[in-house]
Amino acid sequence: MRKLIRVDSAKGTVQWEDLVPEYAPLGGRALTSAIVAREVPPLCHPLEPGNKLVVAPGLLAGTTCANSGRLSVGGKSPLTGGIKESNVGGNAAIKLGKLGIAGIVLEGQPEAGKLFYLLVNKDGAQLLPAEEYKGLGNYDLASKLQDKYGKKVGIVSVGPAGEMKLSAASVAVTSTNGTPSRHAGRGGMGAVMGSKGLKAIVVDDKGAPGVSYHDKAAFREAAVVFRDALWEHAVTKPGGGLAVYGTNVLTNIINEAGALPTRNFTEGRFEGAQKISGETMHDVIKERGGNTTHAGCSACVIQCSNEYVDENKNYVTSALEYETIWANGANCGIDDLDAIAQIDRLCDDFGLDTIETGCAVGVAMHAGIKSFGDAQGAIELVHEIGKGTPVGRILGSGAAVTGQAYGVSHVPVVKRQGLPAYDPRAVKGVGVTYATSPMGADHTAGYAVATNILKVGGFVDPLEAAGQAELSRNLQVATAAVDAAGLCVFIAFAVLDIPSGLEAIPKMLNAQYGLNLTLEDVTEFGKQILRTEREFNKAAGFTVADDRLPEFFANEPLAPHKVVFDVEPEELDEVLDF
Amino acid sequence: MRKLIRVDSAKGTVQWEDLVPEYAPLGGRALTSAIVAREVPPLCHPLEPGNKLVVAPGLLAGTTCANSGRLSVGGKSPLTGGIKESNVGGNAAIKLGKLGIAGIVLEGQPEAGKLFYLLVNKDGAQLLPAEEYKGLGNYDLASKLQDKYGKKVGIVSVGPAGEMKLSAASVAVTSTNGTPSRHAGRGGMGAVMGSKGLKAIVVDDKGAPGVSYHDKAAFREAAVVFRDALWEHAVTKPGGGLAVYGTNVLTNIINEAGALPTRNFTEGRFEGAQKISGETMHDVIKERGGNTTHAGCSACVIQCSNEYVDENKNYVTSALEYETIWANGANCGIDDLDAIAQIDRLCDDFGLDTIETGCAVGVAMHAGIKSFGDAQGAIELVHEIGKGTPVGRILGSGAAVTGQAYGVSHVPVVKRQGLPAYDPRAVKGVGVTYATSPMGADHTAGYAVATNILKVGGFVDPLEAAGQAELSRNLQVATAAVDAAGLCVFIAFAVLDIPSGLEAIPKMLNAQYGLNLTLEDVTEFGKQILRTEREFNKAAGFTVADDRLPEFFANEPLAPHKVVFDVEPEELDEVLDF
Repeated sequence: MRKLIRVDSAKGTVQWEDLVPEYAPLGGRALTSAIVAREVPPLCHPLEPGNKLVVAPGLLAGTTCANSGRLSVGGKSPLTGGIKESNVGGNAAIKLGKLGIAGIVLEGQPEAGKLFYLLVNKDGAQLLPAEEYKGLGNYDLASKLQDKYGKKVGIVSVGPAGEMKLSAASVAVTSTNGTPSRHAGRGGMGAVMGSKGLKAIVVDDKGAPGVSYHDKAAFREAAVVFRDALWEHAVTKPGGGLAVYGTNVLTNIINEAGALPTRNFTEGRFEGAQKISGETMHDVIKERGGNTTHAGCSACVIQCSNEYVDENKNYVTSALEYETIWANGANCGIDDLDAIAQIDRLCDDFGLDTIETGCAVGVAMHAGIKSFGDAQGAIELVHEIGKGTPVGRILGSGAAVTGQAYGVSHVPVVKRQGLPAYDPRAVKGVGVTYATSPMGADHTAGYAVATNILKVGGFVDPLEAAGQAELSRNLQVATAAVDAAGLCVFIAFAVLDIPSGLEAIPKMLNAQYGLNLTLEDVTEFGKQILRTEREFNKAAGFTVADDRLPEFFANEPLAPHKVVFDVEPEELDEVLDF
Repeated sequence: MRKLIRVDSAKGTVQWEDLVPEYAPLGGRALTSAIVAREVPPLCHPLEPGNKLVVAPGLLAGTTCANSGRLSVGGKSPLTGGIKESNVGGNAAIKLGKLGIAGIVLEGQPEAGKLFYLLVNKDGAQLLPAEEYKGLGNYDLASKLQDKYGKKVGIVSVGPAGEMKLSAASVAVTSTNGTPSRHAGRGGMGAVMGSKGLKAIVVDDKGAPGVSYHDKAAFREAAVVFRDALWEHAVTKPGGGLAVYGTNVLTNIINEAGALPTRNFTEGRFEGAQKISGETMHDVIKERGGNTTHAGCSACVIQCSNEYVDENKNYVTSALEYETIWANGANCGIDDLDAIAQIDRLCDDFGLDTIETGCAVGVAMHAGIKSFGDAQGAIELVHEIGKGTPVGRILGSGAAVTGQAYGVSHVPVVKRQGLPAYDPRAVKGVGVTYATSPMGADHTAGYAVATNILKVGGFVDPLEAAGQAELSRNLQVATAAVDAAGLCVFIAFAVLDIPSGLEAIPKMLNAQYGLNLTLEDVTEFGKQILRTEREFNKAAGFTVADDRLPEFFANEPLAPHKVVFDVEPEELDEVLDF
């Protein structure tokens, strides 16, 4: 019987409770969104006691299912003002699953200056003082906690950005290699965790009972079919694009497609793309003796991660990823991979969303604070965020605030969240997702790039408006369910093309929980998650006006294809209207 | 026949046009809001070319009517994201009226770095280069333009804050004494003017034809009745509270009422109130040889203005007003009148809303950037805004951004606009106005303080929820009409208590324009303005969720009365639902 842990940060108490019926069949994003929608006043200030932070592994966490190690971090977002589920890999989710923990709910607010951490293991959960860790970066923090609790514990933590309650603050999770290099980046969940005075959650699954299965044999059978699908598909198989080049395989592809947002979304191709591409990165890492293919998340069979090393072969950062490389590379006119790796390391250490940070720096460069292409200038700016200087606080509050402070109107945000690495004018399906996702601009919420560019799950012309609304809808619904299961979004590549892989998902859920879900039920489950999220946002004051891209995407044609975003508002309004 | 001047700042053209029928019967706020609602895309970025800045004198501007010298400045607000009419006195409105100009509409956007000013006189209107005035404070600018065009011209201008497009930037208007000390402060209209590359509008009414009257004798008769009402009422008469102590007569009254927001709205009484009160200020100015009673606005018979001088009898600022003294005094724990006068002068010179600035500094003090009570620290912070340093840009973006950047959740804003000088928990009628006005938190939009505290127009207990919704509704409707007429909001004191004064208003409009308006028509006119504004806001994405005070006003009882804001949401939703 999975349990919820409730931490009252005002009283300093920890309580275990059974899942109420409304929460019992839920996990991951389904659970975080249900708890936020049911328990958080939609009009509360995200940093006031009324907000809650919910950390929940997916329904399949702790099982033998491949790529089931995702963790959902939810709450009312200080960045968007709406509901948020921020998704992260690493090693914590499966440990929570093995401990029988469906979720951890942080409530209330301690006196200013108080700092705690939560230790969760087979014996229970304890709130312990963390004043000695105040102001520490995630790397030092993880290292100190590992010294105390062992190298293998899972650590969920905030860096200085979260303690400062900056809207771009992430929640870090340790990777399989022990580094705090996986981040629930989007939407400022680190600020919410910081506002609750929680520096870290240490998850130790030594001696954990493990997951109990309704039908273990049936589960194993379905899990093998599922894994085989991942190992069969060109994108996700061993030796495939993701394994060899990591997510950064996309730089050349998206640049070629004319959809790589360059210099704050003013162009669609970056002349320095080759220098920061996955192919170049692969060679650099290889040559220096780093690790090009690595499983950053427990249970991962795709291994898109890497370990980036510097010229002296010293570890810099893990999973230097496409989004980070784009945001702090092409988007800032920077073609220096070592500089980008350093920015990634700083963001991981300070606890910052690399996408929001890169978007904010791009806007600051647009304002002339630094020049596009000034790699050292960008590194300096990220240091300013870590130090909490005024300019750092502007940038650390995200792209929207940066635009407002510097009088820049060319600001790529939806629902005040910075846009990811695909220009919506040239990949219109993901533009629909940016516009309509309850999360704000988020590529993972409905990754239409798959079908628009990679031709997975069919093909919809990225430059045409036709068909994008339906594509985004189907992907958003499926993704919500995937996020609830705790599966990596990359499994979509395989299951969109290989029916047996898709069918294995309800089979695993049925075998684990004794259910009779069909694929249609899973679709309905995804829709219900989105309905819940949209209802919260509506009560928080969101309308169709929030489901729009900034006007410049409709007014300024993007080179080289000279395209604008032209999916009609009426179509956008129907995407999630079910 | 009144005309509109359209300035296309992209093309550098100026066109005169007749009022289309939809605009013909309108003036002041009615005209600015109608033009914005009809011509500005509700979802445009306020600093993009699609936004417009509309400057319009009221319907009675240029006539002999007392206190008819108000100017409306409208557009989509970069602070609130909604429609905005910011209201200001000074000497420009009546000159525009005498020139037969119903409004000036600034459209488009020039190349970055271009700066113009507009010269308007009896011969027409010209757009002239203003590069030489770049970065000038309003005081130096006014002085240079007066050297060129004479001491008596009206000047509408932006300082460095407007050029930087800061959300707290005001539009300055010269006072009758020639100083740029009257400001359309609220909502960042200075940023919109700055984004259009317009540094100033110079209005020279030498040789102007003057207003033509349908029935001049009837107008004069009504105007005398109206003026007599102002001279009869205790608040507005010569030797009355406003004339002797200025608006700062309120400090002691509101402090006594327990409604003077102190140290960022954490208390309702300020121990230093006496030191910054109108009575003290009167004595200080008197002793130093300044001017305690002064008409800052053309046509004013109330004379609430003053000229504050320093210890050496040198002019510092004009109309040191209650809102400014509160925002930068009690709200920041500052009891030093000379320091507050200096802040007022700096705000006037940089072109900053003194309310938004004080609210932002109060939030920054809450964050510990400076200590409450640190007058020199506050002055330094305002200097930072003028210089456009990072901390200055945070503060100059208003209280909401300041709270976000510094992780403060105790932020007194509605629709992202800082609250004025009356705590809504202890003057609940004005709290209803803050919550529901389409303008964001704005005391002038429905000044329920009159009835709650001053017992003008009856009495509704300020500490009780009952009756506040109706009170605010009636005042908001009446105020919209008053703003359209171009009358000073202080005429309300007299006309709420003296029926002949109230009846004189439609009589003057009828005599001037050949109309047959009744008082009911004027009420309907006010309602129509509010409907127009609310429709724009709705299309811009506002909902009832935006018509709420921050939750801390409902959760944190205010000393000394230990009251919370408890007007029910359902009541708020009905205030302007007509």
